[in-house]
Amino acid sequence: MAEPIRVVVTGAAGQIAYSLLYMIARGEVFGKDQPLILHLLDIPPMVGVLEGVVMELADCALPLLREVVPTTDPLVGFKDVSAAFLVGAMPRKEGMERKDLLSANVKIFKVQGEALDKVAKKDVKVLVVGNPANTNALVCSNYAPSIPKENFSAMTRLDQNRAASQLANKMGVPITSVSNVIIWGNHSSTQYPDASQGTILINGEWKPIAQAVNDNAYLQGSFIETVQKRGAAVIGARKMSSAMSAAKAACDHMHDWWNGTAPGKFVSMGVFSDGSYGSPKGVVFSFPVEIKNKQWKIVDNLPITDFAKGKLNVTGTELQEEKDEAMSVLDSN
Amino acid sequence: MAEPIRVVVTGAAGQIAYSLLYMIARGEVFGKDQPLILHLLDIPPMVGVLEGVVMELADCALPLLREVVPTTDPLVGFKDVSAAFLVGAMPRKEGMERKDLLSANVKIFKVQGEALDKVAKKDVKVLVVGNPANTNALVCSNYAPSIPKENFSAMTRLDQNRAASQLANKMGVPITSVSNVIIWGNHSSTQYPDASQGTILINGEWKPIAQAVNDNAYLQGSFIETVQKRGAAVIGARKMSSAMSAAKAACDHMHDWWNGTAPGKFVSMGVFSDGSYGSPKGVVFSFPVEIKNKQWKIVDNLPITDFAKGKLNVTGTELQEEKDEAMSVLDSN
Repeated sequence: MAEPIRVVVTGAAGQIAYSLLYMIARGEVFGKDQPLILHLLDIPPMVGVLEGVVMELADCALPLLREVVPTTDPLVGFKDVSAAFLVGAMPRKEGMERKDLLSANVKIFKVQGEALDKVAKKDVKVLVVGNPANTNALVCSNYAPSIPKENFSAMTRLDQNRAASQLANKMGVPITSVSNVIIWGNHSSTQYPDASQGTILINGEWKPIAQAVNDNAYLQGSFIETVQKRGAAVIGARKMSSAMSAAKAACDHMHDWWNGTAPGKFVSMGVFSDGSYGSPKGVVFSFPVEIKNKQWKIVDNLPITDFAKGKLNVTGTELQEEKDEAMSVLDSN
Repeated sequence: MAEPIRVVVTGAAGQIAYSLLYMIARGEVFGKDQPLILHLLDIPPMVGVLEGVVMELADCALPLLREVVPTTDPLVGFKDVSAAFLVGAMPRKEGMERKDLLSANVKIFKVQGEALDKVAKKDVKVLVVGNPANTNALVCSNYAPSIPKENFSAMTRLDQNRAASQLANKMGVPITSVSNVIIWGNHSSTQYPDASQGTILINGEWKPIAQAVNDNAYLQGSFIETVQKRGAAVIGARKMSSAMSAAKAACDHMHDWWNGTAPGKFVSMGVFSDGSYGSPKGVVFSFPVEIKNKQWKIVDNLPITDFAKGKLNVTGTELQEEKDEAMSVLDSN
């Protein structure tokens, strides 16, 4: 069996991590033959809860889990890690301005970027789940100059899974019959869930989703809104934010980054923009990507309608504003 | 691919179910080629939360999950199910006498037994997780006379996993190096975690645990106490009871029941006692079992020391008392 790799989860005492740690330790991301040493990073007030999580992970009797390292020290948490799930972030509180939220998170992701830079493996794959995920990933990378920018990403896979699930449900097919639905832009309410590049398996035949659904008003209207507002709808019902489904999406994201995508399939990841599809260069923007040898590549030459251009513009503008605000916070510190 | 089977989880809006539903839907119990229809049963006040769980299960985009049926009606929840995870139960509240607790749970498991009897598959496998699990399983079976008694079981696998984990940690070996640790009796503080029948892999050689550990005071003292009190220790740290590890153990239990145990390996399950090892006949008692063709068989002829006899007697007496009290509640209703 392979040598263990080290994987860190931040916000490790929280609800998403509670689902995520199990999934990782079970082998869902790095495979059934890859032993793991899990690093659990959280803030000092969470040390007690973290200890309980460590006990439960032991009690799960998971064959791949060789060691668990709970810590509040980023230099311990990120030491020699091959993969990092940055789940912990400052949540938006009522009445909080975007700038206040960005400011609080810039501080967290600056510290984590610096720690990654100092002690993580140079080929570490970093997935930011904590919101605002795109801009947090940007800040984190900014403070880890020794690690390639390509190794930082933000999660929009939950949105992709939600979008695919909506379409499967509408068409009455299993989720495996929906392919290549895209999330563009920011993991926020400006995101653009785009079914127009995807295909769906109906009666044994893969068809363009737009053709199979045959309802443009839906695809450009309530489909998009439902995906954009799904997080709030889950909170409305469950009285707690999405945890299981967020953790599953984080696993999907890292799994595909680690293992690659099947030929012709693409997945959505927030990555540094090279200006593709008119997006602002240098922001972390969600694109459709294909992955091979642990390297993602933006899928190019997809047809973009005027409707899509408008949507891409809105979410790109928001990301540029977030970046500018984050940078002004950084400059003033 | 096989036809979907129906699986019910009760207490489906609760914390254990939140972990468990994902694990089942992911294929951890019935395999990666077995599509599933999940029935989620809970009580009317939980309908809102349940709806949130249904949304998240959809958003997990799980290939095996073909349909989710949330319901508050046992006749819908148990309809045509092949496996039942009875997680929901009335928890013990402060100042509650055992008899009050039994009384509240007898009512729940009577209703569920009757529903199973009416509408479940006759070969349904029933695992009771909700406490007092052993006696709840007994009551449930009592009201489902058309289903074989062998198809009802109570979970002690969490205790077994905890016990194995303690030993692996003490000896500094992976959890896969610990085998055949037994939980005898009741899933309560009288349970007897027994390392004396087990083996441990040390330096490439399987040895009796007692010989490898070479510390009888530990094995008959703090080892037992730690396992017996582990649930309370987790609550102390996490401020919530075990959910992830309980769900994992439920999966392990049903997985092994469904798929069988490897030659020479046994696992602990609470099952109807035939009087083996001096246990009271007719209570649901945790024994070491081997499983083949979905049928468990108590491992016989294990050597029992006088120390063990004392422990078995204590937990057996408790189960007999619980049974008598439950039956008196039933008789008076």
